[in-house]
Amino acid sequence: MIKVTNGGVIAPKGFKAGSVHCGLKRNIKSHDIAIIFSEQPCKVAALFTTNRIAAAPIKYSKKVVQNGVVHAIVVNSGNSNSCTGKKGYKDAETMAQLTSRHLNIKPDEVIVASTGVIGHHLPMAKIKSGISKSFARLGNQNAHSINISKAIMTTDTVPKTIAVKTKIGGKEVTIGAIAKGSGMISPKMATMFCFITTDASISLNTLRSCIKKSTDGSFNQITVDGHMSTSDMVAILANGMAHNRNITSSNKIDLALFQKALDYVTLNMAKAIVKDGEGATKFIQIEINEAKSTSDAKKVSRTIAESPLVKTAINGEDPNWGRIVSAAGYAGIPLDESKLKLSVNKIMIYKNGLPVTPFPKKLLSEMKKNEITIQLCLGKGNKSATLWTCDLSKEYVKINADYHT
Amino acid sequence: MIKVTNGGVIAPKGFKAGSVHCGLKRNIKSHDIAIIFSEQPCKVAALFTTNRIAAAPIKYSKKVVQNGVVHAIVVNSGNSNSCTGKKGYKDAETMAQLTSRHLNIKPDEVIVASTGVIGHHLPMAKIKSGISKSFARLGNQNAHSINISKAIMTTDTVPKTIAVKTKIGGKEVTIGAIAKGSGMISPKMATMFCFITTDASISLNTLRSCIKKSTDGSFNQITVDGHMSTSDMVAILANGMAHNRNITSSNKIDLALFQKALDYVTLNMAKAIVKDGEGATKFIQIEINEAKSTSDAKKVSRTIAESPLVKTAINGEDPNWGRIVSAAGYAGIPLDESKLKLSVNKIMIYKNGLPVTPFPKKLLSEMKKNEITIQLCLGKGNKSATLWTCDLSKEYVKINADYHT
Repeated sequence: MIKVTNGGVIAPKGFKAGSVHCGLKRNIKSHDIAIIFSEQPCKVAALFTTNRIAAAPIKYSKKVVQNGVVHAIVVNSGNSNSCTGKKGYKDAETMAQLTSRHLNIKPDEVIVASTGVIGHHLPMAKIKSGISKSFARLGNQNAHSINISKAIMTTDTVPKTIAVKTKIGGKEVTIGAIAKGSGMISPKMATMFCFITTDASISLNTLRSCIKKSTDGSFNQITVDGHMSTSDMVAILANGMAHNRNITSSNKIDLALFQKALDYVTLNMAKAIVKDGEGATKFIQIEINEAKSTSDAKKVSRTIAESPLVKTAINGEDPNWGRIVSAAGYAGIPLDESKLKLSVNKIMIYKNGLPVTPFPKKLLSEMKKNEITIQLCLGKGNKSATLWTCDLSKEYVKINADYHT
Repeated sequence: MIKVTNGGVIAPKGFKAGSVHCGLKRNIKSHDIAIIFSEQPCKVAALFTTNRIAAAPIKYSKKVVQNGVVHAIVVNSGNSNSCTGKKGYKDAETMAQLTSRHLNIKPDEVIVASTGVIGHHLPMAKIKSGISKSFARLGNQNAHSINISKAIMTTDTVPKTIAVKTKIGGKEVTIGAIAKGSGMISPKMATMFCFITTDASISLNTLRSCIKKSTDGSFNQITVDGHMSTSDMVAILANGMAHNRNITSSNKIDLALFQKALDYVTLNMAKAIVKDGEGATKFIQIEINEAKSTSDAKKVSRTIAESPLVKTAINGEDPNWGRIVSAAGYAGIPLDESKLKLSVNKIMIYKNGLPVTPFPKKLLSEMKKNEITIQLCLGKGNKSATLWTCDLSKEYVKINADYHT
């Protein structure tokens, strides 16, 4: 039984958050630096962008996460510390050091994350002051939760946060999360930021496999514009303060309960990112069924989702199945035209190589809805994949053409 | 010495063209069906879309081309005869038969090509009348050349045609071409339509290798929106009426002269397609140098060209090098950030993992130009690739959101 609750990342026992405006964003009311802190050291598992041009904090945090123990996260928005060379790496290290000194923990127990404009060195005096003030404001009240969810935003229009409670072995376990992401969304390993906290007691290996599985079905199955960022990170911190029986792969029941709650959190955050996609007016779910393999299904779903012609058709509320089917055709897997079946919002529109006649007129009103579900059966096997994306609007072009470096 | 001349596909000796409006396009002044005819049978070589969902005329013409002999092309715009099942294939066959009867040639000597909306059966009474009238109007005057270049257009805003003369073994050889394409442009084997005629005498195998080589460096190196069409075709017909010494692979000089003239024609047509890209305001040339392999260079150029974030930045006249470099980072090849060098319109902006400082202000005025050249050196080897694309504008979204099936 999963119960949604308040508090985001500070909902689980022992977690605090603190954030302030330190001068990276123009609006002085917008928080742009934050700390997440756990009273107890945490098991940690994380996934990072697979972009070969990785930002300095990604390089630093990858090392930290390898040790398996993390005590805090320091994160800023407004400057991604990406393409900043050796000085950028040193600055990420300094962020960890400053944070660790305030918290009286080790620098290699601090995850560093930065998002925002590429190619500018961090203004370290501002960062230093921001870390100090964020530390001074650490707390676990509702305001702390709201502030930190806003502090990691860039072009996001809404904060993204969730917390859920579930019972594992008779004990209440809580999982909380904040996420950011709106453009540059097309993960191949992880995407955007999602920081997840939990008071669950869980083994390191199990935590690693749980977050990998959960990410594969959520953050790795979303795309806004097919552009992979240099700064993406999904990290989960588990401090064990729920004092449940330690979750390991040998207790299938406990494991399943935790995985289910975690999946609920990641899927919710993944969908929230797509719904807030730059310029998005429609939320699109693409389900590929009857594929020979999951990999095939994923390829087809992504090719459809990344076609500007499919995305603009949906923006124009046009059931242009020819664009959907032809996108499937260049996904790079064997296809049999005569076996395809395509439905949009559960209305069959293309079957066995031909459009359904007469044209299902009801589809025209369905296309006006905010949520569009595309279902394509390949007739090749029994594997499936679902991917979430959004439409491509004039507003997307405006946001990204008018955005100046 | 290559000399540009008039006449397009009917510039080479022995070629005629005829076109009319038969009722596929709404505007009764717009020609929508055409025949290209050679007095003598031609050697033929062609490349087709690699989309697994191929239109009926593609399936039919693939068979025709295998024989190596073609006498005519029948082509219509306004309806692509794609996703039309068995009846669609039969209709393509019928188009060839009708054309062959008028011309007194064999049906399997006729290439059939169709472009336009997907998923509608051809109105065969109109097609029949159109073929008959096109035959009646066959000729080799300037008007015939202009009319046929317009007859194959769909969302194209300008007709695309060229003819060149060159001397091979003391004889004048002419190559002419027409092309269409504006959206759904992202070839992996061939793209759009380009019909090329020549009076050169050339062996079939040599013709095949020449067009393959020429396409790899032109039509396979352009992209507008990354969406591969179901109907794309590049075909070259050579009727030998220039009576030059037969071009074969054993005469390197003749071969090089022909290849050079053909490359001139295909590159000109490929660039014309990108310049006429839907909503395009900027023509973008992407040069990748110092790659380990040509394949690596092509991957990087395509990933940059297909990033909506790069395309919108250029639309907004912003030298957003972070988007270019980060796109290179997810192209799927090993990259060394510290070895990259990026220039835009020959102005270095990013070098050795860092932006050039101070920021080269001259770049701001360069970004206002209609032609933008991106040069990225990977520092990994000595291979190169060049790709041509266009920007992504609000007008692109408008064209494709407002276009209704």
